[in-house]
Amino acid sequence: MKRICVDMDEVIADALTEHLARYNEHFGEQITAEDLHGKWIWDVVSTDRHSVVDRHMRSEDFFEVLTVMPESQRVLRRLQMNYEVFIATAAMEVPTSFNQKYRWLAKHFPFIPSSHIVYCGDKGILRADYLIDDNPRQLRRFQGEGILYSSPHNANVTGYRRVKDWLEVEELFLG
Amino acid sequence: MKRICVDMDEVIADALTEHLARYNEHFGEQITAEDLHGKWIWDVVSTDRHSVVDRHMRSEDFFEVLTVMPESQRVLRRLQMNYEVFIATAAMEVPTSFNQKYRWLAKHFPFIPSSHIVYCGDKGILRADYLIDDNPRQLRRFQGEGILYSSPHNANVTGYRRVKDWLEVEELFLG
Repeated sequence: MKRICVDMDEVIADALTEHLARYNEHFGEQITAEDLHGKWIWDVVSTDRHSVVDRHMRSEDFFEVLTVMPESQRVLRRLQMNYEVFIATAAMEVPTSFNQKYRWLAKHFPFIPSSHIVYCGDKGILRADYLIDDNPRQLRRFQGEGILYSSPHNANVTGYRRVKDWLEVEELFLG
Repeated sequence: MKRICVDMDEVIADALTEHLARYNEHFGEQITAEDLHGKWIWDVVSTDRHSVVDRHMRSEDFFEVLTVMPESQRVLRRLQMNYEVFIATAAMEVPTSFNQKYRWLAKHFPFIPSSHIVYCGDKGILRADYLIDDNPRQLRRFQGEGILYSSPHNANVTGYRRVKDWLEVEELFLG
């Protein structure tokens, strides 16, 4: 059975919407996802505001409240019938996320056993056939086939098969 | 550069001594490591006491106070010069350990970057040439070469190259 690793933020968890909501509320602005075409949020907000964005992300309630990406639960359940599915997130970059991410997965993806959850940093450590991730830096390190999950910041990235939503993941792996 | 994954409990962190200390204090007994030849602590204490041992392990201060295995720091530093070294621990089995393990590693192994720390469940997910681990169940799942780190519970396990301490790890990989 082939193995698929699936990233969390921007793939099954909508972190960007929460980032923008907190940023806009804090600074009274109206940045939208469309404004981020080809850029991370860090690239469009001025440097003196980075610490605020960073503090939002490192708070004790950022990751726990994220919205589930549409169809990701249904499609992951289907994938489990034909593939070995692991969730693999670069949680080591944000230690405050450890418990939040664990509870979030238990709540929204209870059908993923904890034995199939991985917190890592460098995703080159994963032994899998596929990695679905929005971050090209991680896909470059990964030694299986990287599948790029579309997010505004990676709009201009090429060199990977790309999926724009979970219906496209379903089509790609279950045809 | 070849990659080595290194387990935490019973390999770089002396969890067994802490388990026995808490158990003996709680029940007024004197179980020693020698009593565990070929057995896990769960096999030698009566079933009605398992919940106490489990509660000890899941407390907020169990993993943080563990003693570092002799020579492990020095040898891991040396290994880093010739190998890519990752720490890989089955932390998903004990979520209360997430933050404790992170702080413990930062304190005792600050030369291991957080990008090279992995919390997982099933170590079959690791892409590495070697895994040094005391748990034969994990070594069986791992797809590189498993190196069995001696611990009382695995005294009778065969089928792997075995190291009894960090001097033997040093000899094996740098000898």
